[in-house]
Amino acid sequence: MRKFFPFLDWLPKYQKKFLGSDLVAGFTVGVILIPQGMAYAMIAGLPPVYGLYASLFPILIYALMGTSRQVAIGPVAMDSLLVAAGLGALAITSMEEYIIMAVFLAFMVGAIQLTLGLLRMGFLVNFMSKPVISGFTSAAALTIIFSQLKHLLGANIPNSNQFHQMIVNAFQNISTTNLYDLAIGIMGILIIVLLKRWNKKFPSVLLVVLLGGFAVYFLGLEGYGVNVVGVVPEGLPSFTMPAFGMGRASEIFSIALALALVGYLETISIGKALEEKSDKETIDANQELVALGTSNMVGSFFQSYPVTSSFSRSAINAESGAKSTVAQVFSVLLVVITLLFLTPLFYFLPNAALASIIMVSVFGLIDIPYPQNLWKHRKDEFWVLVITFLVTLFIGIKEGILVGVLVSLLVMVYRTSKPHFAVLGNIRGTDYYRNIYRFEKEVIVRDDILIVRFDAQLYFGNTNFFKTQLFKQIEAKGPGLKLIILNAEAINYIDSTAAKMLVQVIDEIHKREIEFYIAGAIGPTRDIIFTSGIIDVLHKECLFVRITEAVKYFDDPANISLLGKNVAYQNRVIGN
Amino acid sequence: MRKFFPFLDWLPKYQKKFLGSDLVAGFTVGVILIPQGMAYAMIAGLPPVYGLYASLFPILIYALMGTSRQVAIGPVAMDSLLVAAGLGALAITSMEEYIIMAVFLAFMVGAIQLTLGLLRMGFLVNFMSKPVISGFTSAAALTIIFSQLKHLLGANIPNSNQFHQMIVNAFQNISTTNLYDLAIGIMGILIIVLLKRWNKKFPSVLLVVLLGGFAVYFLGLEGYGVNVVGVVPEGLPSFTMPAFGMGRASEIFSIALALALVGYLETISIGKALEEKSDKETIDANQELVALGTSNMVGSFFQSYPVTSSFSRSAINAESGAKSTVAQVFSVLLVVITLLFLTPLFYFLPNAALASIIMVSVFGLIDIPYPQNLWKHRKDEFWVLVITFLVTLFIGIKEGILVGVLVSLLVMVYRTSKPHFAVLGNIRGTDYYRNIYRFEKEVIVRDDILIVRFDAQLYFGNTNFFKTQLFKQIEAKGPGLKLIILNAEAINYIDSTAAKMLVQVIDEIHKREIEFYIAGAIGPTRDIIFTSGIIDVLHKECLFVRITEAVKYFDDPANISLLGKNVAYQNRVIGN
Repeated sequence: MRKFFPFLDWLPKYQKKFLGSDLVAGFTVGVILIPQGMAYAMIAGLPPVYGLYASLFPILIYALMGTSRQVAIGPVAMDSLLVAAGLGALAITSMEEYIIMAVFLAFMVGAIQLTLGLLRMGFLVNFMSKPVISGFTSAAALTIIFSQLKHLLGANIPNSNQFHQMIVNAFQNISTTNLYDLAIGIMGILIIVLLKRWNKKFPSVLLVVLLGGFAVYFLGLEGYGVNVVGVVPEGLPSFTMPAFGMGRASEIFSIALALALVGYLETISIGKALEEKSDKETIDANQELVALGTSNMVGSFFQSYPVTSSFSRSAINAESGAKSTVAQVFSVLLVVITLLFLTPLFYFLPNAALASIIMVSVFGLIDIPYPQNLWKHRKDEFWVLVITFLVTLFIGIKEGILVGVLVSLLVMVYRTSKPHFAVLGNIRGTDYYRNIYRFEKEVIVRDDILIVRFDAQLYFGNTNFFKTQLFKQIEAKGPGLKLIILNAEAINYIDSTAAKMLVQVIDEIHKREIEFYIAGAIGPTRDIIFTSGIIDVLHKECLFVRITEAVKYFDDPANISLLGKNVAYQNRVIGN
Repeated sequence: MRKFFPFLDWLPKYQKKFLGSDLVAGFTVGVILIPQGMAYAMIAGLPPVYGLYASLFPILIYALMGTSRQVAIGPVAMDSLLVAAGLGALAITSMEEYIIMAVFLAFMVGAIQLTLGLLRMGFLVNFMSKPVISGFTSAAALTIIFSQLKHLLGANIPNSNQFHQMIVNAFQNISTTNLYDLAIGIMGILIIVLLKRWNKKFPSVLLVVLLGGFAVYFLGLEGYGVNVVGVVPEGLPSFTMPAFGMGRASEIFSIALALALVGYLETISIGKALEEKSDKETIDANQELVALGTSNMVGSFFQSYPVTSSFSRSAINAESGAKSTVAQVFSVLLVVITLLFLTPLFYFLPNAALASIIMVSVFGLIDIPYPQNLWKHRKDEFWVLVITFLVTLFIGIKEGILVGVLVSLLVMVYRTSKPHFAVLGNIRGTDYYRNIYRFEKEVIVRDDILIVRFDAQLYFGNTNFFKTQLFKQIEAKGPGLKLIILNAEAINYIDSTAAKMLVQVIDEIHKREIEFYIAGAIGPTRDIIFTSGIIDVLHKECLFVRITEAVKYFDDPANISLLGKNVAYQNRVIGN
C-alpha cells in the first residue's frame, strides 16, 4: 500500500513550515499552468479548455502516488504534438470524435504505463540514448514552433505532421497573414524573452495573456480579424467513461506506446535532474510509471488528454521552493477556481498570444551545443542524433523515436562486431603486458609467444572477426610460434556460437603444435569455459590469472603458485 | 581481374592427375543433380525442367568465379521453398507469369548479392547466430517435408506457406490419397534410407528415379491415376532478358533480400565447413558474394531461378574427390546431355518418387541435439532458437529470419544492459583482487575502500544500471568509505551517454568526500577518458594500471612507480 501511495509515508511527517513554500510554489506554477495548458491543448488540436481539464485529476493523482517531490505534471508541448500527429493520421471527421479519441488515448497511455510499471519495465527508457533524445527533442521543438506559425500570423495554414509540408503550406498561405495577429504574437515573444532575462520567476506568460486579452477587448481588435479563443465552457469536467473499443485501441496503440514511453522518459529524467540538485533521493523508476499511468487513466475519466511532467513548470516549482507534492494541489486549486469563475475572461484572449507563449517555451528545447560536442568527439553518435532529428522532422515523431533507438542499438552492435583486437608485449622492467602499438619503445616481444587481447564479449556477431584476426596474427608470427596467450580480461561473455568457434580454433591451434593459454578470465567467463566444452580442449592447466604467470609457466611448468591456480580455476560449475 | 576470376590463378597450375578425380566427382554429383534439380523446382512451384535450367549457367559462372574448390551450387530445397513462399504471396494468375517472376527473382537476388559483395558487406551474415540458423533450418525442413505430402500421397492438397494451414489442408484432403502414389513414395524413401546406410556414395536417388519411371511405364500405373512429371521440353534454354520492372522489383525486394542472404549464408558456411577438413584455405567471403551474385544474374538470362550451394551435393562432391571447380563443369555436361537427348525419358517419372527424394534429403536438416544442448546450458539462446523455429513455421520464412536476428540481437543487448557487477577484495597472500562472493574465504575486504568491477562496455543501455549498482554498494559500505576503485579492465567502451553519467557520478562521489580511482583501463578506454571530460573531474593521478597499485598509492601517495604512471596515463589524445 505504502509502496503505491508514497504520500502515506511523507504526509504524517509533513511540517507546517513547508505549507508556505508549497503554497507559493503551487500558485506560481498554477499561474503559468493555466495559459500553458490552454496553449498546449491547441498544439494537440483540442479546444483550449481541455488543457485545463488535463490539469485537474492527473495532477491530484500524481500528488498522491508520485515519488518525486518537485515534478509538476500536466499538459506539455511534446506530448500534445504527439497527440496531434497520432490522431491527425486517423480518419476523424468531427471535433467531438477527435476529443473522444484524445481522451481515450489518455486512457490507453495510462494503461500501458501502469502495465509497464507493474511489470517493472521502467528500464526500457534506458534504450533511449542521449543522442536520440536530443535529436528527437530538437526536431519536435522545431515542428511545434512551425505548427504555431498559423496562430502567430493569423493565417490560414493547413496542418501537417511533416516539416517540409508545413514549410510549403506556410509559404503558400503567407499572404493571408493578419498583421494585428502578427503584432500581438511578436509583442508576446518580446515580452517573455526580455522579462525572462530580467527575472526568471516573473510570470511573464500571465502578463502576455492579460495584455493580449485587454488589447483585444479595449482596442476592439476582434473587428480587425484577430483570432481569439472564444467561448470557454464554464465548470468542471464531469465523470464520463472513455470510449473503449478494440478497433480504436488497435488504431492508436502505436501512438499510445510512443506517448507512454516519451511521457515516462520526460518524467523520470526531469525528476532525476531535480533530485540531483537536492539532498534526498526519493525517486523510484517503476513507481513513477505506476503513478503516471494511474494519473492518465483516472484523468481520462474526467476528459483529460495525455499528460506528463513539464520541464518548465517542474523547474519553476523547484525554484519556487516546493517541498512536496502538496504544492501541486494548490496549482489544481487555481485551475478549479479558473474553471468555475474565470472562463468568461478568456473569451478575448488572442490565439497569437498563446502561440507566442508556446514558441518561446519550446525554443529552449532546441539543443545545439550537444551535437557540436558529439561532432568533435563521437562521429558515430553524432550521426545517430542527425538521423533521429531528420526522421522526426521529415517523416514522423513515432518513426523518429523508433529509428533513433534502432540506429543507436545498431551502432552499439556494429561496434561490438569489430572490437579492438590488440597484440600485447611485456613492458620493459614490469610485469605489465600492453598493446605493442601504444608502447612501441618500451615493449619486449618474444618470437615464440603471441599474446592477444580481445576487447568485447565474444558473441555470434564477432566470432568470425575474432577468428580472422587471430589467425592473421598467427601467420604474421611465423613458424617459431610455440604459445598463444589470450588475455580474456575484457571478454565479459561467450555465447554458444562463440564457444563453438573457440573450441574449433583451439583444436586447430593444437594441430599446428602451438599451445593455447587463457589469462585473466573473469568469473562468469570461467563458468562458461567450464560448461561449454572449451575446457575439454583447453585443460585446466592452461588457465591463468595473469599473462605474466602464463609466460612463467610456459618457460618452466614447475613455476606455478597454488594460490594462482586456485584463482584461475575457480568456477561455479565443477569446483576448484 | 584475378581477384574476380580466381580460375585465372589456379587453372594454369591445374595438374593432369586432377582430371580423373574431377571427372568422377563431377559425374557423381551430376547424376544426383538431375533428379534433385527437378524435385526442387517442384518445391519452388515451377515445372521440373526449370531445375535443370538452373543447373547450367549458374554452375559454370561459379566454376570461374568461386573461391571454394568443392562447393557444388545449383537449385536447393531451402531456397526453392523461399521462392515458393515469396511468389505465392503475390497475385500471380498464370504459370507463365509465375515463371517470369521466378527468373526475375533470380536476377534480383544476384544483383543484391553482387552489390553486397562489391561493398564488402559479407560480414552481414555474421548476425545470423547459430540458434537462429538452426531454428530456421529445422522449421524450413519441416515445411518442405509437409509441402511434398501431396505428391507423396498423390492427394489434392492445396498449397500453403503456413504449417498449421498445411496440416489442416492435409487432413481435409487425406481421403483423396492415391495408394499407388503412396506406395511409390514409401518405396522411394525406404530405398534411399537403406542404401545410404550401406554406402553413402551410391547414387540411390538415381535408382529411385529409374525404378519409379520403369514401374510406371511397365506396370501402366498412369492408368491408376499415378501423377507423373509428363512432357519435359527438349533442348537448352535460350537467351532471354529477365522481365525488368520497378513495380515488380519492389514487390519481390524483401524476398530477394532474404534469398540473397540465406543463399550466401549457405554457400559460405558449407564452403568453410569443407575447407576446415582440407589443408588449404582459399575462401574469400566477399568474393563468394560476387561469384554467387554473378551466377544468379547470368543464370536469370537463361531461365534459371535462384541458386546457391547445396549441402548434400557439396558433401558428395568433396567425398568423391573433387580437386577444383572443373568437377562442376562435368556435372553441367551431364545436364546438357540430359536436356538435349534424355528429356523424353522423364515423362513417366512419378512425382511421388521425386517427393521421396526431397523428404529424405531434407529430413537430415532437422536438428535435435543442438537445441537439447542449448536447453541444458544456454536457456536464453534456446528460446531464441524456439522463437525462430515457431515464427518460421507458423508465420513465414522471411519473418522467421527477421524475428530470429532481431531477438538474438535483443538478447545480446539485454545481456549488456544488466551486466555482471562484482565487488572485489584482495585475495590473501597475493596482489589479486577478485569477486568477494566467489572467494569468500580467501578474501580480505577493507572498510575504507570499495573496489568494483563492471563487466561490459558502458553505454546508454546500462548507465542507469551502473549508477544504481554503484550507489547501492556505496550505501552498503557506510560512512567509513574513503576510496572507490573502479576496475575498468572489462569496460571496453564508454559512449557519450555513459561518459556524461560517469562525470556526474564522480562529481557526486567527490562531494561526499570520497576519492575515486580507475584501475586497468585499456587503451581505447583511456583515450575516451581523456577526450570526454572524465579526466577533468578525475585527474590523471587517479588512473592506475592495477588495483594493487591504486591501493598502495592511497595508503602512501609517495609510493608510485614512474613506469606504472606512464602506462596508466598513456593515451592517443594528450600524450603521456
